[in-house]
Amino acid sequence: MKKLDPAIEPGATIGILGAGQLGRMLALAGARLGLKSHIYAPDAGEPAFDVAVRSTVAAYEDEAALARFAENVDVITYEFENIPAATAAFLAQRCPVHPAPLALEKTQDRLIEKRFLNELGVATAGFAPIDSAEAIGPALTSFSGSGILKTRRFGYDGKGQAMIRDTAAGTEAFASFGEVPAIIEAVVPFAREISAIGARGPDGSFRAYDICENSHANHILSRTEAPARIKASTAERAAEIAKRIADALDYVGVIAVEMFVVDGAKGEELIVNEIAPRVHNSGHWTIDGAATSQFEQHVRAISGWPLGSTARRGRIVMDNLIGDEVCRWREILQEEGACLHLYGKSELRDGRKMGHVTRVYADGTIYADGTN
Amino acid sequence: MKKLDPAIEPGATIGILGAGQLGRMLALAGARLGLKSHIYAPDAGEPAFDVAVRSTVAAYEDEAALARFAENVDVITYEFENIPAATAAFLAQRCPVHPAPLALEKTQDRLIEKRFLNELGVATAGFAPIDSAEAIGPALTSFSGSGILKTRRFGYDGKGQAMIRDTAAGTEAFASFGEVPAIIEAVVPFAREISAIGARGPDGSFRAYDICENSHANHILSRTEAPARIKASTAERAAEIAKRIADALDYVGVIAVEMFVVDGAKGEELIVNEIAPRVHNSGHWTIDGAATSQFEQHVRAISGWPLGSTARRGRIVMDNLIGDEVCRWREILQEEGACLHLYGKSELRDGRKMGHVTRVYADGTIYADGTN
Repeated sequence: MKKLDPAIEPGATIGILGAGQLGRMLALAGARLGLKSHIYAPDAGEPAFDVAVRSTVAAYEDEAALARFAENVDVITYEFENIPAATAAFLAQRCPVHPAPLALEKTQDRLIEKRFLNELGVATAGFAPIDSAEAIGPALTSFSGSGILKTRRFGYDGKGQAMIRDTAAGTEAFASFGEVPAIIEAVVPFAREISAIGARGPDGSFRAYDICENSHANHILSRTEAPARIKASTAERAAEIAKRIADALDYVGVIAVEMFVVDGAKGEELIVNEIAPRVHNSGHWTIDGAATSQFEQHVRAISGWPLGSTARRGRIVMDNLIGDEVCRWREILQEEGACLHLYGKSELRDGRKMGHVTRVYADGTIYADGTN
Repeated sequence: MKKLDPAIEPGATIGILGAGQLGRMLALAGARLGLKSHIYAPDAGEPAFDVAVRSTVAAYEDEAALARFAENVDVITYEFENIPAATAAFLAQRCPVHPAPLALEKTQDRLIEKRFLNELGVATAGFAPIDSAEAIGPALTSFSGSGILKTRRFGYDGKGQAMIRDTAAGTEAFASFGEVPAIIEAVVPFAREISAIGARGPDGSFRAYDICENSHANHILSRTEAPARIKASTAERAAEIAKRIADALDYVGVIAVEMFVVDGAKGEELIVNEIAPRVHNSGHWTIDGAATSQFEQHVRAISGWPLGSTARRGRIVMDNLIGDEVCRWREILQEEGACLHLYGKSELRDGRKMGHVTRVYADGTIYADGTN
């Protein structure tokens, strides 16, 4: 068996589970630092394969393929948190896997995640487990009659979620989800949505980016702006929460923590919505807007290399190009200073993230709405 | 036969001749814009292959391989100017090649290049063709007794060059070069070496980066600083010269023009040393130091897309990592804000360009030597 804590040197190969745009941008960041990438994913034709030295197209349950993959790479990471736990455990016996499988265990299941957060003293929305339709009524009552039903596992971009305002609607949604284990969350009357994105190295070093602010449309991230329009003390607390979570998981890599900012009686309160144990869409602004991109930072962390500067280059606005918004690519290229990123996806579909564009403004720029 | 002027769209494939670090960084820039790369080069194991969708390892004279390559890509470019003219002509009949073969013809041979420049009204060092040893003595006499003997073709990083101060030394150097056609150039008493790097699109649009200043060690570029410490009027003239050359070649892509700055009786005079019809080492600072990197700019130009902003982000210092200087990679990663690039070359050799590091300072930074 391979040594479990090898020194990663330039020329080494990073194994990446998942072949979407996050895997692609990780591979590009690795290449910049002289690293090779080997992408492992179940479906051919995904964008990360186009920039990798080696590709494995195989199921996450294919132990023979996983064993060969682990043999051929120096460190393994992943672009999404729904890697089967058994896959991560199987690989971790053969090769370093960062973030470690514990991070998957705590973040794949909304119930486990919320309990983990509360045990750390981190506030979440109120929640109740829903294992049967009978549990819906009492939960709704405790949340003043409305809540969000969410499957415990495999949700993203609003999939597996439904706002419910009465027991009948809840029962219907629960059935439509296939009666899989779910939770109901209280609705949080938030003023803003923000992300705290940071990286932790194997030596416990931690560096956070400036807190950014997110806007969603149809449950999909639409825009991220950095810095978030929150108090400095709130931003400090947000970064501290991300660090507390990363420390508790003995985490290695980039972690993103989505939070709600609530204008409470005592000022801005923070409610953690979700942990992403990976690079995150709301961190794409760092490619053009920070000294070290989240992708390079992740590569540095999982390689045991020093973390890079998170200094921000100005005021940043990152817009996702979703579905046919990507057809504006030529117009965006014409726009002075706009930084266009296209993910190389072969098929355009509604709701699919096809690229993003980042605009960097000098600090102090006055925006069209009069703010600065 | 393929349409010769196709509209390049995201998802298209760029064919790149040459698989070194320039090809690699072109492929990475293309990937960011949703383009695929197909690398063609004679030797396997070169760094650009690691980030390409397709690879062809074949000789530049292999017409069957070239024809297949041209069939499989949408536009062809190259990372170095010593592509055989016949190769470029063969490909250009099958697929758009940018820059066009005319640029190779005018820049592969130092004698042709200098005559081309002089015809454009661009000053060069004095020169004399050397086709036989007998020509050396008279040429030296006309250049006050010393000059630089250079082979007309295939020189780079000081290879095929010798400073000569008498006929005997000249004859010996000419013999050591195999008596291939050469020139003698007068020695230019320059104050600085600079590069003008710009890009020209198929529509004649042209955008130059700020002029940068180069330092060499052992005939290899060691450091580039931007902006060059020259007068604004000199910088304007340098950019204008690059544009004049590009226009004369009906050039498409990034072009780099190396120049000497001479402190003459009438102020700063510009003497063009060499044209590189490609992205250039002295433009690497643009990756971290400009709004659009020279690699993205080249990709935009050859794709017929709008050229990007060349705005500079601050004062920039780019240092090449040559030979075992690359062993300092971990130390550089520890340095706050230093941007490290490693080329993924499998073998370290003396004089080999292994990577570079770019440092971006806020304009107005006071340097250690007291300048700003």
